[in-house]
Amino acid sequence: MLVIMRDHASREEIDHVVELLEEAGAQAHLSGGEVKTIIGVIGDREVVYALELEGLPGVEEVIRVLKPYKLVSRDFRPEDTVVRLGSTGAIGGGAFAVMAGPCSVESPEQMRAVARAAADAGAAMLRGGAYKPRSSPYAFQGLGLEGLKMMREAADEAGLPVVTEVLDVRDAETVAEWADVMQVGARNMQNFMMLDELGKIGRPVLLKRGLSATLEELLSAAEYVLKNGNRDVILCERGIRTFETYTRNTLDLAGVAALKTLTHLPVVVDPSHATGRRDLVAPMARASVMAGADGLMVEVHPDPERAKCDGPQSLDILAFSAMMESLMPLVEFAGKRPGVA
Amino acid sequence: MLVIMRDHASREEIDHVVELLEEAGAQAHLSGGEVKTIIGVIGDREVVYALELEGLPGVEEVIRVLKPYKLVSRDFRPEDTVVRLGSTGAIGGGAFAVMAGPCSVESPEQMRAVARAAADAGAAMLRGGAYKPRSSPYAFQGLGLEGLKMMREAADEAGLPVVTEVLDVRDAETVAEWADVMQVGARNMQNFMMLDELGKIGRPVLLKRGLSATLEELLSAAEYVLKNGNRDVILCERGIRTFETYTRNTLDLAGVAALKTLTHLPVVVDPSHATGRRDLVAPMARASVMAGADGLMVEVHPDPERAKCDGPQSLDILAFSAMMESLMPLVEFAGKRPGVA
Amino acid sequence: MLVIMRDHASREEIDHVVELLEEAGAQAHLSGGEVKTIIGVIGDREVVYALELEGLPGVEEVIRVLKPYKLVSRDFRPEDTVVRLGSTGAIGGGAFAVMAGPCSVESPEQMRAVARAAADAGAAMLRGGAYKPRSSPYAFQGLGLEGLKMMREAADEAGLPVVTEVLDVRDAETVAEWADVMQVGARNMQNFMMLDELGKIGRPVLLKRGLSATLEELLSAAEYVLKNGNRDVILCERGIRTFETYTRNTLDLAGVAALKTLTHLPVVVDPSHATGRRDLVAPMARASVMAGADGLMVEVHPDPERAKCDGPQSLDILAFSAMMESLMPLVEFAGKRPGVA
Amino acid sequence: MLVIMRDHASREEIDHVVELLEEAGAQAHLSGGEVKTIIGVIGDREVVYALELEGLPGVEEVIRVLKPYKLVSRDFRPEDTVVRLGSTGAIGGGAFAVMAGPCSVESPEQMRAVARAAADAGAAMLRGGAYKPRSSPYAFQGLGLEGLKMMREAADEAGLPVVTEVLDVRDAETVAEWADVMQVGARNMQNFMMLDELGKIGRPVLLKRGLSATLEELLSAAEYVLKNGNRDVILCERGIRTFETYTRNTLDLAGVAALKTLTHLPVVVDPSHATGRRDLVAPMARASVMAGADGLMVEVHPDPERAKCDGPQSLDILAFSAMMESLMPLVEFAGKRPGVA
Repeated sequence: MLVIMRDHASREEIDHVVELLEEAGAQAHLSGGEVKTIIGVIGDREVVYALELEGLPGVEEVIRVLKPYKLVSRDFRPEDTVVRLGSTGAIGGGAFAVMAGPCSVESPEQMRAVARAAADAGAAMLRGGAYKPRSSPYAFQGLGLEGLKMMREAADEAGLPVVTEVLDVRDAETVAEWADVMQVGARNMQNFMMLDELGKIGRPVLLKRGLSATLEELLSAAEYVLKNGNRDVILCERGIRTFETYTRNTLDLAGVAALKTLTHLPVVVDPSHATGRRDLVAPMARASVMAGADGLMVEVHPDPERAKCDGPQSLDILAFSAMMESLMPLVEFAGKRPGVA
Repeated sequence: MLVIMRDHASREEIDHVVELLEEAGAQAHLSGGEVKTIIGVIGDREVVYALELEGLPGVEEVIRVLKPYKLVSRDFRPEDTVVRLGSTGAIGGGAFAVMAGPCSVESPEQMRAVARAAADAGAAMLRGGAYKPRSSPYAFQGLGLEGLKMMREAADEAGLPVVTEVLDVRDAETVAEWADVMQVGARNMQNFMMLDELGKIGRPVLLKRGLSATLEELLSAAEYVLKNGNRDVILCERGIRTFETYTRNTLDLAGVAALKTLTHLPVVVDPSHATGRRDLVAPMARASVMAGADGLMVEVHPDPERAKCDGPQSLDILAFSAMMESLMPLVEFAGKRPGVA
Repeated sequence: MLVIMRDHASREEIDHVVELLEEAGAQAHLSGGEVKTIIGVIGDREVVYALELEGLPGVEEVIRVLKPYKLVSRDFRPEDTVVRLGSTGAIGGGAFAVMAGPCSVESPEQMRAVARAAADAGAAMLRGGAYKPRSSPYAFQGLGLEGLKMMREAADEAGLPVVTEVLDVRDAETVAEWADVMQVGARNMQNFMMLDELGKIGRPVLLKRGLSATLEELLSAAEYVLKNGNRDVILCERGIRTFETYTRNTLDLAGVAALKTLTHLPVVVDPSHATGRRDLVAPMARASVMAGADGLMVEVHPDPERAKCDGPQSLDILAFSAMMESLMPLVEFAGKRPGVA
Repeated sequence: MLVIMRDHASREEIDHVVELLEEAGAQAHLSGGEVKTIIGVIGDREVVYALELEGLPGVEEVIRVLKPYKLVSRDFRPEDTVVRLGSTGAIGGGAFAVMAGPCSVESPEQMRAVARAAADAGAAMLRGGAYKPRSSPYAFQGLGLEGLKMMREAADEAGLPVVTEVLDVRDAETVAEWADVMQVGARNMQNFMMLDELGKIGRPVLLKRGLSATLEELLSAAEYVLKNGNRDVILCERGIRTFETYTRNTLDLAGVAALKTLTHLPVVVDPSHATGRRDLVAPMARASVMAGADGLMVEVHPDPERAKCDGPQSLDILAFSAMMESLMPLVEFAGKRPGVA
C-alpha cells in the first residue's frame, strides 16, 4: 500500500500517518522529494487491507497495490484449475463445456426434450432454474423442489450432470442433493453468507458476475468460496449493466480474456442473458471461444414462444444444434476439446 | 402492454401473436395503418407480466405500460406512509429522521459515545453494523450477535431506536429481537428470499438501492415486502455505480425527488456511502433535504481515523453536531419537522 | 508518478524502466522490499505526463500522482474566480447567477416574453440556442444567425447579457459578436480545437460536462481554455449518462460539491437537461444551491407544449417565477447573493 | 409514435393532446379501454420526430416507434455497402480489412517501418494520427500537416491507402488531400457540423462510436453523413465507458453483431483503444471476426516502449504479424476474404 501525501504536507501530518500504521502493526517506509512525500506500507494482507487512511489530514490518495484476493489468482497457482462436472464432464485446462437448458423448469416433458437434445448436440451439462429470481413479485417464481426433481430425472436419462441456481442459502443443502454444480446468480454474487456456505458444502460452484461488479469484485467473491475450502469454482461472465439499451446487458468479452490471465479458474460465458436477443446468441458464443472462454451457458427451450421466462433469448432445439455444430471447429482452432466423456 | 409489429408484418405473424395472447388469457386489440400494426394487450398484471413476446416472428418491440409493482405506488395509495421508529421516532408524512452511527460496531465504549452524541444532536435513531458485507474476505467482518447486544445497550441508554443490517436470512429472527428497523443492504436489494422473509416478520425495513438498480427495480423489490404483508418500508438512496471515480458512487438526488412522486414510502439518503468522502457528507445532506428526502443515514465515529471500516467517509462527533445544526433550518424550510418524540 | 513493478520483477526489467525514464529526462527513485519494487518518477508535468510505461515487461501498474491540469486547480489559485456576465452580472466569489431561457430561439415574440420574465424574476442572464446539436438529422436544427440577432435584441430590451452555444468552431467569431458568454455543449467538451479557439477569443466560456466525462476530464478541458490565455471559464454540471432511464441523465451533485474544492472556477447546474422532467427542475435547483453551486441554467419557455425542443423539461413563466422565489432564501442561507447589478 | 395516457386521464387532457398533434400536421388514432387511452400518431418522420409531448397533462409516456435514422438502416437498403479503400482495398460485402499503424505519426522512419510491416502482414490500410485529441493540454498533440505528409509518403511506398483523423472541421479539406479515408474520433461522433462537412466532401468516412453513445446515436450520426450525399461510411466500435477499470473501455462485441443486423454499413473494431492493454488485442481481434466485424483497426508501433502515445496498447511488428496469421483462417471460416487487391 502506498500513501500519497498532499504537496507540502506537514511534518506532523506525516508523523501521524506513520504512527497509525505502526500502531496497526504495519511498517512504514518514507520516500519523496521537496514537494511530495510518499509512504510505502508493508504488512500482511489482513492488516494492510483493513487500514483506511483516506480521510487523514495531509493524505491525498491511498493506493492499494496488494490485491484483495489471493487463492484465486494465477500468481498463487499458475496452472489451470479443472473442475469435474458430475461423473461425465470437465471444464478448464483445455476442456470446453457447454451447459444448456431452459431458463426455468416447467414440466417433465419440457426437461426431457431439452436434455435429450442437449446431449445429442454435445452439451456437457443440463441447466435449468427451479428457484427463479425475478425483479417483480408478479412474475413466475419457479417450481422449487418439484422442479429440481424433474430436472434430475431428465438429466439422468440423458446421461448429463445438472447445474442449477441456489437462490436461498437455506436451500443450499437441498440443492446439493439434486445438482452437480451449484449456481450463484448475478444478484447473489456478493451474498457473502451464501458464498461461505457453498465454500463449506464443497460441491462445485458456478459464480455469475454481478450486474455491475468489477473483475476484482468477482475474483474477491470467488475468494470467499476458496477460503472456505472449496477450490472448484467456475466464473461466469453474463453481461454488465451500461447505458446501452439495445441489448439486455453489455457482454464484456475483454473481461473474459482478462480473467484468463488473472485467475486459474475456468470461465464460461452466458450469451443468452448478456444479450437478451436470440439472434445474437450464436455470434456471441463463437466470439466467446475466441476470447478464451472455457465454456458456455446457453438457454434452450423446446418451444421458446411459450417459455415461462426469457423466451426472447432462448434458442429452440434446432437453432441450438446448429450453433453447436458451428462452434466445434472453433473450439478445436482455439486448442481446446469438448469437456465430455 | 403493446406489441409493435415490424413494418409490413404478415397476416400470419399478426394472427400468431394474437393466438398466443388469447391462449394465455389476455385480450388483444389491433390497431394500425398500412405499414405498421400495433397490438394492445389487456389482462391482469400477473398474466400480462408473464408474457414474453419479444422474439416472435414479426415482432419489433414489446412495451410494458403496466408497472411491475402496485402496492408501493402513489397511484395505489396517495397519502404518505409514516413508519414508526421504535417507540420514540417516526419518518415520513413530514417527519424527518436522521440515523447516525458507525459503519461497524466495535466496542461498548465506541457505541455509547456515538449513541449519546447522536441523541444530543437530534438524531432519531442509532445505526451500526454487526454483520458486515465486505468485498474481500480479508476485511473485518463484524462482531455478530455480540455487536447487536452492544448496540442495543448503548441505544437504550441514549433512548434511541436501532437500525442494523440483516446480512443472512437465517439471522433475520435474531436481528429482529435486537433491532427496531431491519436494514437490507445494497448487495441484497434483490435477495428476494430475504425480502419475502422480512415481509413476513413484519418489523420495519430499510431497503437500500442496489449498486446498479433502477428506480423501478428498487420499487419492485419493496413490493416483495409489502406483498408479504409488511407495509413499513423505508427506501434508501446510497449512490449508484458509474464511470466517475472521484466519489465512491454517484449520488442520485433526482432519483430521490422522483421516488417521492412515484411512491408513498419514505425515502432517506446515505451521503456517507454515496460519496465516500467526509468533506462531501454535509453538503450532500443539505442537498438531500432540498431534494425532498424524509431523512438521512450518516456514518459517525468517535475516532474515524481508527475506525475498522469506512473511516474516510465517517464524521467525528463534532462534525456531526455541526452538520445537524446547519440542517435543522433547512428541514423547517422544506416544511418538515424532526422525527423524534 | 509511481511505477509499481510486479512481484519479483527481474533486475533487467527494473533497469530497463529506469533507463527509459532517464532517457526521457525524468529522474527515477527506487524503493521496495524483497517482493516488490516501486519506482518513483520525478520530472516536469509535460515530460512525466507523456510517459506511458504500462505495457513494459515487469510493470504491474503506473500511478499518476500529478494531475493533468494546473491552472484551473485551487492549489494553483486558492481564491474564487469571479466571471463578469456582460456589464450587469457576475458569477463566483459569492455571486449566484441564474441563466434562463428556451432550448431554442424560435421567434422575436417568444424571446421577448422570456427575456422580460427572466429579468423580472431575478435571472442574471438570458440563454437560448441558435445552433442546435440534435442526435437526429431529422430534428429541428435552430435558426442560426437570425436566432442570435433575435436573442440579442430581446436581451438588450430586458437589460440582460446573453449566453449561447457555439456549435461550429467556424462560427466562433460570429457568436462572439452577439453573445456575452460562449457556451460549449456537452458533446463538444472534448472538441479541443474549439477550446483552443475560445481560449484565444477571450470571451467568457461556459463549459458543459460531457455525457460521460469524469471531473478530471472536465477540468482538463477547462485547462485548454486557460492555457490559451482566457481565465473566464464557468463549469456546468448537466447530468451524466448511466443505466437509469427514468431521468434523462443522472445529476451528479456530489460532483458539484467536489468541483468547488478542486477548482477556483464557478460551477453552475443545469437541472433541465440533467433530469429531462419539468417536475424535477425546481427540487434539483434548490438541491444545487445546497451542494455549493454558483448558479443555474434553466430552460424556460412561454408555451412549453409548443416548444420546438425540450418542451418536456421546460418551465413556463409562472413556474419559473415560483422557483426563483423559493430559491432566494436558500441562496442567502448558503451565504451567497444574486449575481445581478 | 404512441402516446400512453395516465390511468383515468380526463377527456380534456386527451382532447388537448389530439389537438396539438393535429395542429402540428400529424394524425391521431385513439384506442384504449376503461382505464387507459393510447394515442397512435401517424405523420412523416420530420413532423413526428419534432413532437415532444412528454410533459403534457395526463401524458404518462411517449414511445417513438419510428427510428431517428433511415438511410443507414438495413430496412432501407438490405444489401451490404462496400466501401472502397483507395485504389487497392475494400471493406464490406465479404471483404475484411485490417487498418494498422501507430497512434501518432512521429517520424518518417517510424512510418516507413510500420507501413512496410503492415503491407507484408496483409493489412489493407495504414492508420496514424497527425492531429491528436488528448484529454490533457500537456500531452503530445501530433505533428499536424507535417505528419500527414510523412504518412502519405510511407503509405505510397508500401502501396497502402491511408486513414487518419480529422480533428478540426477547418482542416477537413487539407486532410482530404492526403488521406483516402477520413476518421471521425469518438469525441467528435456528435460533432454534427463536422459530419455535415464530411458528408459534402464525399471522401469515405470512418466514424468511431462515442465513449457513451448508444447504437442508435451512432447510426443517427452516420445518417448525417449519408443525408449530405456521402454513402461511404464505415462504423467503428472502440469500447464504451463503464464502471470497469481493468480495461480502458468495455468492448461491446454484441453491439457489433447487432449493428450488422441494423445497418448495411461495414463495421470495424478497434481492440487497441477498447482494451488499452497489449495482451488483450489479439484475442479481441479474433473474437471480433466471430462477432461479424468487417475489419479491424489496430495500433502497431516499431518500438511501443518509446511511442509518444498509447504505447501500452500498441503491438510491435512481430506481434502484429503473428496476430494477422492467426486471424486469416478465422476470416475464411466466417465466410469472408481479405479486403486487399
